[in-house]
Amino acid sequence: VKHGPERRGTAERPLGVAVVGAGYWGPNLIRNFAAHVETTLLWVCDRDESRLSAASRALAGTRTTTTIEDVLDDDAVDIVAIATPAATHLELGLACLASGRHVLMEKPLATSTADARRLVAVAEENDVVLMCDHTYCYTPPVLRIRELLLDGTVGDVQYVDSVRINLGLVQPDIDVTWDLAPHDLSILDFVLPPDQRPIAVSASTADPLGVGQACIGFLTLPLPNGGIVHVHVNWLSPTKIRKTIVAGSKRMLVWDDLLPSQRLSMYDRGIDATELDPEGRKNLLVSYRTGDMVAPALPEREALGGVVDELVAAIREHRQPLTDGQSGLRVVAALEAASRSVAEAGRLVPLEP
Amino acid sequence: VKHGPERRGTAERPLGVAVVGAGYWGPNLIRNFAAHVETTLLWVCDRDESRLSAASRALAGTRTTTTIEDVLDDDAVDIVAIATPAATHLELGLACLASGRHVLMEKPLATSTADARRLVAVAEENDVVLMCDHTYCYTPPVLRIRELLLDGTVGDVQYVDSVRINLGLVQPDIDVTWDLAPHDLSILDFVLPPDQRPIAVSASTADPLGVGQACIGFLTLPLPNGGIVHVHVNWLSPTKIRKTIVAGSKRMLVWDDLLPSQRLSMYDRGIDATELDPEGRKNLLVSYRTGDMVAPALPEREALGGVVDELVAAIREHRQPLTDGQSGLRVVAALEAASRSVAEAGRLVPLEP
Amino acid sequence: VKHGPERRGTAERPLGVAVVGAGYWGPNLIRNFAAHVETTLLWVCDRDESRLSAASRALAGTRTTTTIEDVLDDDAVDIVAIATPAATHLELGLACLASGRHVLMEKPLATSTADARRLVAVAEENDVVLMCDHTYCYTPPVLRIRELLLDGTVGDVQYVDSVRINLGLVQPDIDVTWDLAPHDLSILDFVLPPDQRPIAVSASTADPLGVGQACIGFLTLPLPNGGIVHVHVNWLSPTKIRKTIVAGSKRMLVWDDLLPSQRLSMYDRGIDATELDPEGRKNLLVSYRTGDMVAPALPEREALGGVVDELVAAIREHRQPLTDGQSGLRVVAALEAASRSVAEAGRLVPLEP
Amino acid sequence: VKHGPERRGTAERPLGVAVVGAGYWGPNLIRNFAAHVETTLLWVCDRDESRLSAASRALAGTRTTTTIEDVLDDDAVDIVAIATPAATHLELGLACLASGRHVLMEKPLATSTADARRLVAVAEENDVVLMCDHTYCYTPPVLRIRELLLDGTVGDVQYVDSVRINLGLVQPDIDVTWDLAPHDLSILDFVLPPDQRPIAVSASTADPLGVGQACIGFLTLPLPNGGIVHVHVNWLSPTKIRKTIVAGSKRMLVWDDLLPSQRLSMYDRGIDATELDPEGRKNLLVSYRTGDMVAPALPEREALGGVVDELVAAIREHRQPLTDGQSGLRVVAALEAASRSVAEAGRLVPLEP
Repeated sequence: VKHGPERRGTAERPLGVAVVGAGYWGPNLIRNFAAHVETTLLWVCDRDESRLSAASRALAGTRTTTTIEDVLDDDAVDIVAIATPAATHLELGLACLASGRHVLMEKPLATSTADARRLVAVAEENDVVLMCDHTYCYTPPVLRIRELLLDGTVGDVQYVDSVRINLGLVQPDIDVTWDLAPHDLSILDFVLPPDQRPIAVSASTADPLGVGQACIGFLTLPLPNGGIVHVHVNWLSPTKIRKTIVAGSKRMLVWDDLLPSQRLSMYDRGIDATELDPEGRKNLLVSYRTGDMVAPALPEREALGGVVDELVAAIREHRQPLTDGQSGLRVVAALEAASRSVAEAGRLVPLEP
Repeated sequence: VKHGPERRGTAERPLGVAVVGAGYWGPNLIRNFAAHVETTLLWVCDRDESRLSAASRALAGTRTTTTIEDVLDDDAVDIVAIATPAATHLELGLACLASGRHVLMEKPLATSTADARRLVAVAEENDVVLMCDHTYCYTPPVLRIRELLLDGTVGDVQYVDSVRINLGLVQPDIDVTWDLAPHDLSILDFVLPPDQRPIAVSASTADPLGVGQACIGFLTLPLPNGGIVHVHVNWLSPTKIRKTIVAGSKRMLVWDDLLPSQRLSMYDRGIDATELDPEGRKNLLVSYRTGDMVAPALPEREALGGVVDELVAAIREHRQPLTDGQSGLRVVAALEAASRSVAEAGRLVPLEP
Repeated sequence: VKHGPERRGTAERPLGVAVVGAGYWGPNLIRNFAAHVETTLLWVCDRDESRLSAASRALAGTRTTTTIEDVLDDDAVDIVAIATPAATHLELGLACLASGRHVLMEKPLATSTADARRLVAVAEENDVVLMCDHTYCYTPPVLRIRELLLDGTVGDVQYVDSVRINLGLVQPDIDVTWDLAPHDLSILDFVLPPDQRPIAVSASTADPLGVGQACIGFLTLPLPNGGIVHVHVNWLSPTKIRKTIVAGSKRMLVWDDLLPSQRLSMYDRGIDATELDPEGRKNLLVSYRTGDMVAPALPEREALGGVVDELVAAIREHRQPLTDGQSGLRVVAALEAASRSVAEAGRLVPLEP
Repeated sequence: VKHGPERRGTAERPLGVAVVGAGYWGPNLIRNFAAHVETTLLWVCDRDESRLSAASRALAGTRTTTTIEDVLDDDAVDIVAIATPAATHLELGLACLASGRHVLMEKPLATSTADARRLVAVAEENDVVLMCDHTYCYTPPVLRIRELLLDGTVGDVQYVDSVRINLGLVQPDIDVTWDLAPHDLSILDFVLPPDQRPIAVSASTADPLGVGQACIGFLTLPLPNGGIVHVHVNWLSPTKIRKTIVAGSKRMLVWDDLLPSQRLSMYDRGIDATELDPEGRKNLLVSYRTGDMVAPALPEREALGGVVDELVAAIREHRQPLTDGQSGLRVVAALEAASRSVAEAGRLVPLEP
């Protein structure tokens, strides 16, 4: 199977979509591609037939299959959305990209930096869009945080503290860091200005139940300006916490995703440090600001709708999507560095710029 | 000045008390010793006269002084409560202990393990009580947590996560770890069974404002059973969080000190890992419990009243207090190890048993 | 159209369903009837074609129409679920019931007690099920509250306080009491033992914007045992509150529907009043209990699934559903009495037993 | 005893204070008058000697007595702060005012409108300050609410909803309305512009335990502009709620006194109703605003300190205090009208302008 001379998605008709993987996340992709005005859901593909029958039950005009070949043989398919286990991402992704299809890939993009690089390269060779489904980046609070960081409202980032814990499923094939931290790392990658991205990572994990997988993970990532990012991911917490603090020199943000009435709070609060004399950096005058807090009105919309919007727009406009293959590669690189740090007792492992 | 042949506090009269240091914490000591039925507040001592006038303003029967000698010359003084900066603890403590006075020392006990050891040794030589004012240990939630850990209700501790962050004063002479982590470490020391205390510590800190002191600190302390303790202390947080999770094999506890209506929650929730076959530890059946949550009714009482109770009881009963010099020494040792770990890029520094 | 000699739903095949009204609530009915294993969604009916196209878009095997006649002409239709404005309930309901169809009716059952009575009577004559879609009654917290009241755990009900406020749409044809209070009144009707139902209602409302509809309503309903029920409904609140307190002589319950982590809390807390001497009820010894709080683990399931379950079961078992026409009638009677009370300056209007 | 020719408090020396009543609230008065730079606490007076010993224990320079005569005989006493049961307010107040002393009276000012009027009249005759200790009015959130209402930020008040419930002591001599509603009514009196004060009150209460006192009370008070005020006071609630919503045409305020991190929230949220044509008020265009929320930074200070400040300032400046006798009289009048409404089955009882 080979794509024609024309890049897919340039004609003014809806884009044909196949969703591969109908397990945990797939049904959300199915629902969103089925509902979007610019896409037509043509195929749902999963090795497990029982998932297909459930997925296809209420759908008009969508076919199901257990083999990716059926999908790739259908020339009407422009986009393949892949929501299978990470270990299958490389092979599936390469096949789809090489056939000229645009690909939306679940996080993590791949299980190694090397694999992620290959996917990025093949997408480039075939001039197709490779987008990472970093869903959280398209939520209203994260979009606003990005805006507030990029336009200077927050100032220099002093630290980021991201907590993502609850009583989660212990995964058989992936540890808690690879399972949950992609959310935090992709958000971080999305909101930080490119020149303020982390320069290294130190990590420690624990497997207190002896299940053979780390169930608790702590990541510390220094920033180029002396700031620090901390991530706590945990499958063993009795309570669910999804809270990220972004403290800047001008404003501090708190994003609490479990507080629907006030997900984002912006504090005009902080510490100002003014240099007193040119001789020593230590002679500082520290003063405190305790100003108002503003909780901006945010639209209520499903993030995945924004993912599909951006994917379609990137294809139509022949450009990179906001969460492109490079961003997925950076996230995989940080995860790989974290695993190496754990293996070396918490050594600080540098990240390539 | 030398104490008489008899140990102070054995006679059946109220114990005479001097409070040294009338700054931030001193007034609380003054109030509690003044109100306690078994103590008489005789002296308030501070180098700064302005603090003395404020402290003495509404007090009947209490004298003030700027020199410790006045306190030690008064034979009616049985107890000296020291709430001065940590750098002065060794000298003041040694003088009081050597004079046969019982001492209540603010945390941290000293600024080095060596100094803390000297204080413990001198207290022992003089057969007097050296108690650390680990106030949080005497709050109703911590007393209950200790009970639930010691009686087996919680089971094996899988992890502890302790967050103590707010917009705090940047201290000129002490970093955030030495300022705030003594709370978390002393609580940990208090509630964990002695054979389950941390075996090492890894720490990282940041000074993103360049004030010359770490303002953010993360500590990771492995437990002997494979569990892990994590502590996050922070002076730069826009919101105040005082939350500790203690996850055990049988129950999980959440202590939220800022939620007066429900400070302690006990979840019958968790993950059970059962070994499936004798050959490999990795063949585990993982199952989930999602049971009720119980928020026990706790008394509302001021912790410092319990500190004074325990101090008086230890003196009267000629025994070690719950938070004795040894516990203060262990906290100082962990802080010292954390500082060393920071200096060595996060190396895991072992703690002596 | 007339139903055959046999009552619909006795044969062992899936029940054919038509949903009439595809506006605000209809899509939820469509989704649930489409997904249920014992029902087949045959028709979606709405006068507004634009709603039909949206509703039918992703549905396989479902026809759409703008006239109820198409629905009633189809003999395969066993159940009609009516989610149209309340003013149309009588006519539509009578037509469906008279044709031998079982009916699931949105709240309120009708716009007057007289109409509600007619619907109940016609359902009885035709030996079909008339069920009210009092959805909240099938949520896990309300089902548990009912259980705790019926099995005596809570004891005698002292008061119920139900607050349901947010910035809601000002309805053109219905005031806030008829819009929101059916929720509170149907829940109350569902959880209270039959002999403890309210005996009267006093109400006051306000229309501070002068829109011609009451936007704020307060209902007070005395209970036979001296207790009291209070309901606050409000379209003008800046914050959303959905909280119901049920205080009994033995236990007190708090249901906070916006707190997913702890929707239901049961307090062993209260006031005991013991009669001291036989002469006077006023010589009482009042004492306080402050016991533990238990938040029971509740299943997470969609209430509407339970509504469909109960409807199907009532049809199959030839019995009344839990929220039958009589319960809908009692709710309408209370609403009508509340409107009368408002018109008579808050007079206490009795409710028929 | 008669005061001299000169009005007390004009000389530039600290004002001499006596606190009468050392029960529940008295100790707070004692502490604040003892600490204030412009007052000297001379006497603590209580019939119960045991309270005196406790109160006087740590106080230097304050005398105690069980008789008010000792207080009035001491010419150095300029101010009498009365914190005794309400039934004693008239007699004690008259004695103090007639002797030329300024009086700070606990709420409620008196147990009847007639008594309150006498106190106001006698204060006027003697040209002394009669201030009501409506403490809540001097908290930072209430001061800010007042400001936001008076400067037009909030716009026309549409409704006020005030909830003050917890598991409280059942008082032997006073029902829940007279015990708790003075807080809500005095706050309302303080923050509303004079021409927008309630014009009537309807009330209902319940005594579900049969203790002989209403333990639950609901008050509804229409405003002149068509708005409404609702107050819910309750001694039988398992959870503590102290929340007041003030909804205006321009902004809506939520004051949650149990949320220290965000006591006051101001929402730019609401409903705009625009008249469409001159013929009918019912043809309105209703539109919704969903703007940002601002939580203003508020100082953390004890309200009673502000009470003492205002009392001293009113005396020094020879003016009425913010919460003067008239405000106390209006609160008592509303309580009396509420009691009458309860006795007449919820009749709406008008309030005098």
